[in-house]
Amino acid sequence: MASLKLPEVVPSPNQDTERLRNAFQGFGTDEKELILVLGHRNAQQRKEIKETYQKLYNESLIDRLQSELSGDFRNAIVLWTNDPPERDAKYARDALKTKRKGIKQLQILVEIACASTPNHLMAVRQAYCSLFDCSLEEDIIASVSQPLTKILVGLVSSYRHNKVTVNLDVAKSEAEKLHEAINNKQLDDDHIVWILSTRNVFQLRETFASYKQLYGNTFEEDIKNCGNGDLASLLNVVVWCLDCPEKHYAKVVRDSIVGFGTDEDSLNRAIVTRAEIDLLKVRFEYANMYKSSLDDDVIGDTSGDYMEFLLTLLGKGPKGD
Amino acid sequence: MASLKLPEVVPSPNQDTERLRNAFQGFGTDEKELILVLGHRNAQQRKEIKETYQKLYNESLIDRLQSELSGDFRNAIVLWTNDPPERDAKYARDALKTKRKGIKQLQILVEIACASTPNHLMAVRQAYCSLFDCSLEEDIIASVSQPLTKILVGLVSSYRHNKVTVNLDVAKSEAEKLHEAINNKQLDDDHIVWILSTRNVFQLRETFASYKQLYGNTFEEDIKNCGNGDLASLLNVVVWCLDCPEKHYAKVVRDSIVGFGTDEDSLNRAIVTRAEIDLLKVRFEYANMYKSSLDDDVIGDTSGDYMEFLLTLLGKGPKGD
Repeated sequence: MASLKLPEVVPSPNQDTERLRNAFQGFGTDEKELILVLGHRNAQQRKEIKETYQKLYNESLIDRLQSELSGDFRNAIVLWTNDPPERDAKYARDALKTKRKGIKQLQILVEIACASTPNHLMAVRQAYCSLFDCSLEEDIIASVSQPLTKILVGLVSSYRHNKVTVNLDVAKSEAEKLHEAINNKQLDDDHIVWILSTRNVFQLRETFASYKQLYGNTFEEDIKNCGNGDLASLLNVVVWCLDCPEKHYAKVVRDSIVGFGTDEDSLNRAIVTRAEIDLLKVRFEYANMYKSSLDDDVIGDTSGDYMEFLLTLLGKGPKGD
Repeated sequence: MASLKLPEVVPSPNQDTERLRNAFQGFGTDEKELILVLGHRNAQQRKEIKETYQKLYNESLIDRLQSELSGDFRNAIVLWTNDPPERDAKYARDALKTKRKGIKQLQILVEIACASTPNHLMAVRQAYCSLFDCSLEEDIIASVSQPLTKILVGLVSSYRHNKVTVNLDVAKSEAEKLHEAINNKQLDDDHIVWILSTRNVFQLRETFASYKQLYGNTFEEDIKNCGNGDLASLLNVVVWCLDCPEKHYAKVVRDSIVGFGTDEDSLNRAIVTRAEIDLLKVRFEYANMYKSSLDDDVIGDTSGDYMEFLLTLLGKGPKGD
């Protein structure tokens, strides 16, 4: 349930490119027009617009956006205009290159590995190799310490099958394996890594349900009872991203908004990366979890074109036609 | 250095399809014509021929080949006509479904993971999910016993970057890590798995060279000294496939030919899967390792259309135009 709204008749890339070009020219930039065009086009359409812009004006659209705009609005619209696999590869690289990496950075890798389609994850790994001349897994091994390495390498290397097939016996037996690892306080046990990194999400949701049924607690609660180190925190993000990604992203948005100031990077990431996937569900979960409207909270914490753009991705306003 | 010979002007898929159709019709099948067409077309061209055949005659070319031909010739030409990722996915599935799996079966997984391009391996994983509604990794975990599971899951999940970049310091430090694992007799150590399943082949070749330089023995020799169990045998295949796949395939061909009778399945696999990759090198290594001509040995062990077809893939005869 994407929140992105597309016009009923999508203009040609040539028409869109011309509108963007006009928005850049003249006195000042017409930010409203940029939002009206780019904020209402899907990834494939944005890709064609970028290619057409490059061909017609011999200039990179991303570079032009970078030079015309500033601040949080610029960051958000540039992220949105980037090719999604490249954008995620850059997110992963930035997370891994952060000197004092905590769960806040490493959860970005979990999102890419556990809350994306298998083909998107493959495309991110390909983009990572192309952009940085080294694989995502190599960078994880080089810059993340044990025991987080093992689970992260397993997760980013996964290619889960994508069909809604569930085996109840497997769910039960794997819930038992998860419980055994919890009992032995071995959160990096090979079986945990394999179960979480090879099973498809539908099977895993059934396994988590079996776990709760068999042992009273949820797997997530038992992970917490097992300790409060980085591995436990990371595994909790893994379970959320697999079990109910919209809850995870609702939490990312909430964490970015509550407290002193706004964490615009996290807010952008949640809204930009999920607008074409499940942002309507994220909005619903947000209301459910925090008894507050996501849209109102975005309005309360942002302003101007930046706010307009985020609200556009959240599905507000006209369809851009 | 592929051995496959293409015509200077490749006929259109329509023309090829018509030739195949004529070869099937009339009294008996014209096997020579099938070899002349299919034995001189690359994977993309064969794909287009298959699609055109299906469209024009509402019949699967593979099914028609299956019903018109028989024996080893049929098996070889059907394997060749299959889409390479699907073919390898089926090879992997058959290997995993064999009841008493030994190195002979499991080495097929190593070949796919270590002697293919990263993009081919990804395509095989995708094809595996599409064909069998379960991932390659899930089947490995379900049907291979420890400690082989860990190394195989790591290898088939790899996406190595593909550029010729080598870091000598990394080669030395990783040779030391490999040696430490050997000294501790821990052939399934996490570091061995990570090094072999995340580094690109150029880096790994440098690491193996550093190992020899630092410790006198090759890594492969030290694996053998470490024991003769299945894990040691499998790791030896891994090292060969990464370090010099043409040597590995020369050995596969040799093993299929020497002794009583011929192992046509292995012979087909080596020739069919490498004809578009490095079969000229395999032929050279074969001569080097066994002081014998691969072509002559194929001629000595096969006959008729089957022999003709294998020799065609080995680069003999006209170009099929």
